[in-house]
Amino acid sequence: YKKDVVYQEARMGVSYGLAWTETGGTMLPVETIGFEGNGECIMTGNLGDVMKESARIALSYLRSAADKYAYTIHDIGKTDFHIHVPEGAIPKDGPSAGITLAASLLSTLCQCPPKPGIAMTGELTLTGRILPIGGLKEKLLAAIRNGMTDVLLPADNREDWNELDKEIKESITVHFVETADEAFSVLFDPQINRHLSRKKTSKK
Amino acid sequence: YKKDVVYQEARMGVSYGLAWTETGGTMLPVETIGFEGNGECIMTGNLGDVMKESARIALSYLRSAADKYAYTIHDIGKTDFHIHVPEGAIPKDGPSAGITLAASLLSTLCQCPPKPGIAMTGELTLTGRILPIGGLKEKLLAAIRNGMTDVLLPADNREDWNELDKEIKESITVHFVETADEAFSVLFDPQINRHLSRKKTSKK
Amino acid sequence: YKKDVVYQEARMGVSYGLAWTETGGTMLPVETIGFEGNGECIMTGNLGDVMKESARIALSYLRSAADKYAYTIHDIGKTDFHIHVPEGAIPKDGPSAGITLAASLLSTLCQCPPKPGIAMTGELTLTGRILPIGGLKEKLLAAIRNGMTDVLLPADNREDWNELDKEIKESITVHFVETADEAFSVLFDPQINRHLSRKKTSKK
Amino acid sequence: YKKDVVYQEARMGVSYGLAWTETGGTMLPVETIGFEGNGECIMTGNLGDVMKESARIALSYLRSAADKYAYTIHDIGKTDFHIHVPEGAIPKDGPSAGITLAASLLSTLCQCPPKPGIAMTGELTLTGRILPIGGLKEKLLAAIRNGMTDVLLPADNREDWNELDKEIKESITVHFVETADEAFSVLFDPQINRHLSRKKTSKK
Amino acid sequence: YKKDVVYQEARMGVSYGLAWTETGGTMLPVETIGFEGNGECIMTGNLGDVMKESARIALSYLRSAADKYAYTIHDIGKTDFHIHVPEGAIPKDGPSAGITLAASLLSTLCQCPPKPGIAMTGELTLTGRILPIGGLKEKLLAAIRNGMTDVLLPADNREDWNELDKEIKESITVHFVETADEAFSVLFDPQINRHLSRKKTSKK
Amino acid sequence: YKKDVVYQEARMGVSYGLAWTETGGTMLPVETIGFEGNGECIMTGNLGDVMKESARIALSYLRSAADKYAYTIHDIGKTDFHIHVPEGAIPKDGPSAGITLAASLLSTLCQCPPKPGIAMTGELTLTGRILPIGGLKEKLLAAIRNGMTDVLLPADNREDWNELDKEIKESITVHFVETADEAFSVLFDPQINRHLSRKKTSKK
Ligand SMILES: [Ca+2]
Ligand SMILES: [Ca+2]
Ligand SMILES: [Ca+2]
Ligand SMILES: [Ca+2]
Ligand SMILES: [Ca+2]
Ligand SMILES: [Ca+2]
Ligand SMILES: [Ca+2]
Ligand SMILES: [Ca+2]
Ligand SMILES: [Ca+2]
Ligand SMILES: [Ca+2]
Ligand SMILES: [Ca+2]
Ligand SMILES: [Ca+2]
Repeated sequence: YKKDVVYQEARMGVSYGLAWTETGGTMLPVETIGFEGNGECIMTGNLGDVMKESARIALSYLRSAADKYAYTIHDIGKTDFHIHVPEGAIPKDGPSAGITLAASLLSTLCQCPPKPGIAMTGELTLTGRILPIGGLKEKLLAAIRNGMTDVLLPADNREDWNELDKEIKESITVHFVETADEAFSVLFDPQINRHLSRKKTSKK
Repeated sequence: YKKDVVYQEARMGVSYGLAWTETGGTMLPVETIGFEGNGECIMTGNLGDVMKESARIALSYLRSAADKYAYTIHDIGKTDFHIHVPEGAIPKDGPSAGITLAASLLSTLCQCPPKPGIAMTGELTLTGRILPIGGLKEKLLAAIRNGMTDVLLPADNREDWNELDKEIKESITVHFVETADEAFSVLFDPQINRHLSRKKTSKK
Repeated sequence: YKKDVVYQEARMGVSYGLAWTETGGTMLPVETIGFEGNGECIMTGNLGDVMKESARIALSYLRSAADKYAYTIHDIGKTDFHIHVPEGAIPKDGPSAGITLAASLLSTLCQCPPKPGIAMTGELTLTGRILPIGGLKEKLLAAIRNGMTDVLLPADNREDWNELDKEIKESITVHFVETADEAFSVLFDPQINRHLSRKKTSKK
Repeated sequence: YKKDVVYQEARMGVSYGLAWTETGGTMLPVETIGFEGNGECIMTGNLGDVMKESARIALSYLRSAADKYAYTIHDIGKTDFHIHVPEGAIPKDGPSAGITLAASLLSTLCQCPPKPGIAMTGELTLTGRILPIGGLKEKLLAAIRNGMTDVLLPADNREDWNELDKEIKESITVHFVETADEAFSVLFDPQINRHLSRKKTSKK
Repeated sequence: YKKDVVYQEARMGVSYGLAWTETGGTMLPVETIGFEGNGECIMTGNLGDVMKESARIALSYLRSAADKYAYTIHDIGKTDFHIHVPEGAIPKDGPSAGITLAASLLSTLCQCPPKPGIAMTGELTLTGRILPIGGLKEKLLAAIRNGMTDVLLPADNREDWNELDKEIKESITVHFVETADEAFSVLFDPQINRHLSRKKTSKK
Repeated sequence: YKKDVVYQEARMGVSYGLAWTETGGTMLPVETIGFEGNGECIMTGNLGDVMKESARIALSYLRSAADKYAYTIHDIGKTDFHIHVPEGAIPKDGPSAGITLAASLLSTLCQCPPKPGIAMTGELTLTGRILPIGGLKEKLLAAIRNGMTDVLLPADNREDWNELDKEIKESITVHFVETADEAFSVLFDPQINRHLSRKKTSKK
């Protein structure tokens, strides 16, 4: 029974998804770094086509949200991003890492690590809506087993949550989110918000 | 029985198609955003080759219609478009989303959301003709179930409409269209029209 | 029994080919539009490799014929062409649409619609020769059924024509052509000819 | 029994190869045109990988022979060539069209048609050597049937020629060639030779 | 029983991994060279997709670590790297060469050979974490057989090490590493460290 | 029994490898030419993936050896190379042509033909090491049969050589090489050496 990949400290560009496999749930960490380039997106970690599409959706959503958040990378079109999901020997696929991919990218764009201890799952649409996912129970057990204190779930999975055993529901704090922006407000310091970030700067 | 993806408000760049699957009809929302680039078209949502071709046809048609509509994006050749059809786990294909893809793109090009409550289906040709589609009854039931008030159908499906049960025909308002421009006149505020848009500007 | 796609008016960039399928002959309309780009050729309509090659041959032939015809698009290398054959759900292949593809492209290049009511079929070589095709009888029945008044056929199919029933031969006017230029002289106004076009201009 | 594709006049950029198929030999005309571009080579005619490689070898050989021949196209790196082998419905492959492809390209490069009535076959190496081919008898019968008066054969096929029936050998004039340059001296007017071409110019 | 590929001297850009095959362990040397280019990464040696991804992860990690190490190649985006794993007839795959690939690249970037006699194995993540690997015993036997004096292992393989026979553990010095930077501090002269490198320069 | 491809004179850019097939050994000539371009490498001759990788390794090795040899092509990044292995109908693969590919490329880079009568075989690594090959006896018989007087073999094949029949060993002169540079010193005039080449120039 191999340990899941979870870093002990909050790490820039690293967010924690949850995956559902035949052998149960597992943590699905996502790492992103950015460097000078021409807008390409390198994706590694043995990702299937649907998961690669999820990464493109996350990147495009964040390009369209440039007026909301205080990016330190100003010209996304002249940056290459590398998104990696560790454990390269294991194939991964499906759309439910959408919000995790977006959180990892946003952390890199704002150079601000997500708050520690929060796992998440949810499909992301191009206009920022979070769609429901499957395998909820197994995913939550993995999050609890790995010491996560909070989990972000799609609002449309609320009914599935309600049907879970009390024991699970009391072991982790749930945050239901309808949009990527709601998820980001739980995950990040409010200073990533462009409006707040400017106020802070003007006070100096 | 999973809910269809329909946003509650009119949303920029989002139009509502109708698809016909083995398990019945379903809403097929299409999302488009644009950003600085070099004329590429990113397509996600597990789309098959024919549906990807439909997106290219929609984009080319709108490039050729630049003198009719008041685009806020002036250099299409220096813009990248990302077209996404949510629910990435579900493969989608076929030509009948042509008019939906064009409406989503036009909404983004003019920065004007389509009127709410209107679903549509129809194959688009490169010169703007709307060709007939199949699965009419199932598609209409999905539109009605999701609270759509109006539906755009190809004029060449009029006979199929006439043969439907009265109950369906009374539940939704139908607009038969022969061309993309006829469809756009139902879907959008007349101010997207270049001529009207200019008049309005000159009055000021 | 679905209707064939034939537009009622003469349309810029639209020519009418004839295809031969297992269920009989059918009209094969070809649509072309051009826009600023870098010499790429987008081809849609579920086309097989041989038919895509036919489109490339047609485009190259017209590049090499730039001194014969009065193109309104002067720098073909800085133009993208999109060639579409409607009814994207139906796969299409084979070389016999060569002359139809060339006529559609030439119409766009000269901004002059082909004369209405003329269908055509024939493989095109890179130096402008028209090679014979198969399925003649079925193709002619489709042209007649759709109200075509004239048909262009490869000169090397003359023997096949002679063996047809009198009823077919009297229902449509045939033009045997050996070269693309002969075909264009039947299909287009003589003013697309560079020589005539200049004379006309100099009279003013 | 379909006719082979042979043009009645000498045509710029057209040379005549010979192919060997299951149903006997056939003429294999090769057409080349060139136009402004960036050194790409478009190949059509349902060509297999080996035959496409032969075309690349022919083009590279002629780039390296630019000091021997009087090309009218001076910057090959800024020219696109389109090489087509007619009858797109028929797959073609194998290396034995090498010398035919090179002759077609050289004709286009020098804007000088090959002499009429000459068919040829032979694999070309990158340094201009002609290697032997198979199917000699069937190829020669096709050349004779189509009125060819001369045939170029690889010197290493001399033994195969000697073993043919007298009737075949008396029906066509054979030229054995070891190199591409020997082949070109049979096929073209000596004025394509850079040295001769200059002399001629200086006389004026 | 074929000899493993091990060079007798320390060689610039060459690091020694360990692979685990059906026939036992083997040395897996990695060679890297860099030259002027545009940021491409050529990978040869019959590498599978997962191993190619490992190389991309190594390169991206080192791009993000440019402030830690004294690279002599200053513009990585204008350099092409060629990474080769010898014995091209043998297919290789898997993520466990991650740290070896990074060491080979870092050696080239700093123009400083790794210390001789050190083998290594471990998956690398994009943020520099070393993940555990399999086949430990076979890999160690190969290192010992080839005269390696030291081995770098992932800290998460410590338990597997402890369970090995005393004979193996006494034949080679082990260094457990949690991060790429810990591995590099064992493998390289401290002068590759940007901070130390600068001090040294300022002393002159 | 078809003749092998061996040119009678020493030819620029042509080196002679040895291959081992099911039907025995054969000469494997390699031809290279270079022309203005952008650093691309065209490879023809029905080469498999491993052999194509060998060509890339040879080219990269020679890029990294630019300070050792007197190249007449100074900007390799602005040159295209075309490497061809004749007899395009025959598939070829494997790593053992590495040194032959490098010799052919070096001949082109220095515009100096290899000495005649020398065949060679050996896998090349990216840092210039020659690795051992298989099929030694069959390869040597092919070299002898084609009149080769000398053969270059990997030093690690010395034991295989010693076990051969006396008759073979007396028919050809063997040169064991550990590195590409050792091979080049046998194959080429010492004036390709940058150091010697400069001395010679300065004497004038
Ligand atoms: Ca796991
Ligand atoms: Ca899922
Ligand atoms: Ca649905
Ligand atoms: Ca449909
Ligand atoms: Ca039809
Ligand atoms: Ca046909
Ligand atoms: Ca034929
Ligand atoms: Ca052949
Ligand atoms: Ca080995
Ligand atoms: Ca492993
Ligand atoms: Ca041979
Ligand atoms: Ca071998």
